[in-house]
Amino acid sequence: MSEEQLSEEQFHQMALDKLETGTIAPNRSPTHYTRAILLLPGAVDFAAIQRDFPQFFRDQGDILQIAVDKGIDKADQLNGVDYWLGDFDSSVHLQVDSSKYSAKIPYPADKNETDTELALSLVKACGVSEVLLIGGIGGRIDHQMALLFYPLQYSSLQFYHSDGRQSFYYLQPKKCYHIPAKAASLVSVIALTDLTGLTLTNVQWPLTDYVLPLGRGLTYSNRAITSTIEPAITAEISAGNAWLYLSIPEQDDSL
Amino acid sequence: MSEEQLSEEQFHQMALDKLETGTIAPNRSPTHYTRAILLLPGAVDFAAIQRDFPQFFRDQGDILQIAVDKGIDKADQLNGVDYWLGDFDSSVHLQVDSSKYSAKIPYPADKNETDTELALSLVKACGVSEVLLIGGIGGRIDHQMALLFYPLQYSSLQFYHSDGRQSFYYLQPKKCYHIPAKAASLVSVIALTDLTGLTLTNVQWPLTDYVLPLGRGLTYSNRAITSTIEPAITAEISAGNAWLYLSIPEQDDSL
Repeated sequence: MSEEQLSEEQFHQMALDKLETGTIAPNRSPTHYTRAILLLPGAVDFAAIQRDFPQFFRDQGDILQIAVDKGIDKADQLNGVDYWLGDFDSSVHLQVDSSKYSAKIPYPADKNETDTELALSLVKACGVSEVLLIGGIGGRIDHQMALLFYPLQYSSLQFYHSDGRQSFYYLQPKKCYHIPAKAASLVSVIALTDLTGLTLTNVQWPLTDYVLPLGRGLTYSNRAITSTIEPAITAEISAGNAWLYLSIPEQDDSL
Repeated sequence: MSEEQLSEEQFHQMALDKLETGTIAPNRSPTHYTRAILLLPGAVDFAAIQRDFPQFFRDQGDILQIAVDKGIDKADQLNGVDYWLGDFDSSVHLQVDSSKYSAKIPYPADKNETDTELALSLVKACGVSEVLLIGGIGGRIDHQMALLFYPLQYSSLQFYHSDGRQSFYYLQPKKCYHIPAKAASLVSVIALTDLTGLTLTNVQWPLTDYVLPLGRGLTYSNRAITSTIEPAITAEISAGNAWLYLSIPEQDDSL
């Protein structure tokens, strides 16, 4: 069976087999992974991402690293990745050195899942609890929307998503998030469903136990009022699904 | 009372007063408006928009035209607009000739609604049934997300949203949409809630009466297979909330 003929059903088994037989990293087993990084296409400020999400860079032995299609262009920043995955429709003409990945997992372009969904399924199958999506911000709006809705399918995963200038923190209900933010950073809560119990502090317009019906603009374009004493905003919801969006103060407001 | 001190509560009344007293267009009454155009910030291909949404350009006497803040930069394309509305935080340094609008409606930056929400509230108050948002695609992701969720607040309005290269058609349940599309155009259904009865024809991967849980990638990156005989794709949902996203064939897939 050539890799090109791989069926949808065979994908996860093949990926997990490669993982279990040590094709990727002989000293690891799937249970070792608690976090994962997905490299997606698009320009990023890698130094800013490393500063803002240090838990994903502390011990790379603990982190499952996957490049999704053209996201392989950032593999050097991680000294190579475990998997390079995709239908490769956007990277067919790329020259990629095989030292940049341990295993390449091709996939038919005509499939029911997106490349990123396949990567997330693999992440979930490996027992990961936190995933950082690097890149994938901007570009085609439908792609962006798909990315922002994936947490509803992979509800066991804590999602983060960043290009170093704009970052998204998925708010799982009943957890309190402390998110370091420069003073005057833009802060928006992007509700994906109706929200209850929305509490937001250290921002210009704080909210306490707020009920937000879906489709209201109230929670957009807030501003962090943080300091050296309180360097983080906090966010919490009781029920619902939402992203906390944070962008650097100098991020352009306009189009 | 200076315009700068206008309170939130006074806004709609003032706008409607201006409309009723004929400040804007003496020969019109609010009941004449069946469609509205909102000019939002951002570059657009105006000729393509006029071609794809002719019903908004046929009889300008029937169309309420509102420029939202920096969207005034496109007012020339409509030979001026009825309202120029906003907190003007993004256009404070713009030199705008007063011939470009009939009435200017300023608004405090510190408010519970976004500029676009205020414009939509006005559109709704004027009895409009269909609204075309021109521009506002790309740029800050939180702004984009806010725009895509507004139909849930203004559920009586049929929404369209376009920059001429990428267009969004809001799918109201139980209506069948015939959407002209060049062959090979990208087609995605962006679900905002769980969907039932999703039917999509004249695309590479058609769907019939499909049940789509929120957060799945299945309905992204389809392709129109239209022809001179069947120049339109069709889309329909039984229940739920969704956008049909359509972009020109040569739209860049990647970041």
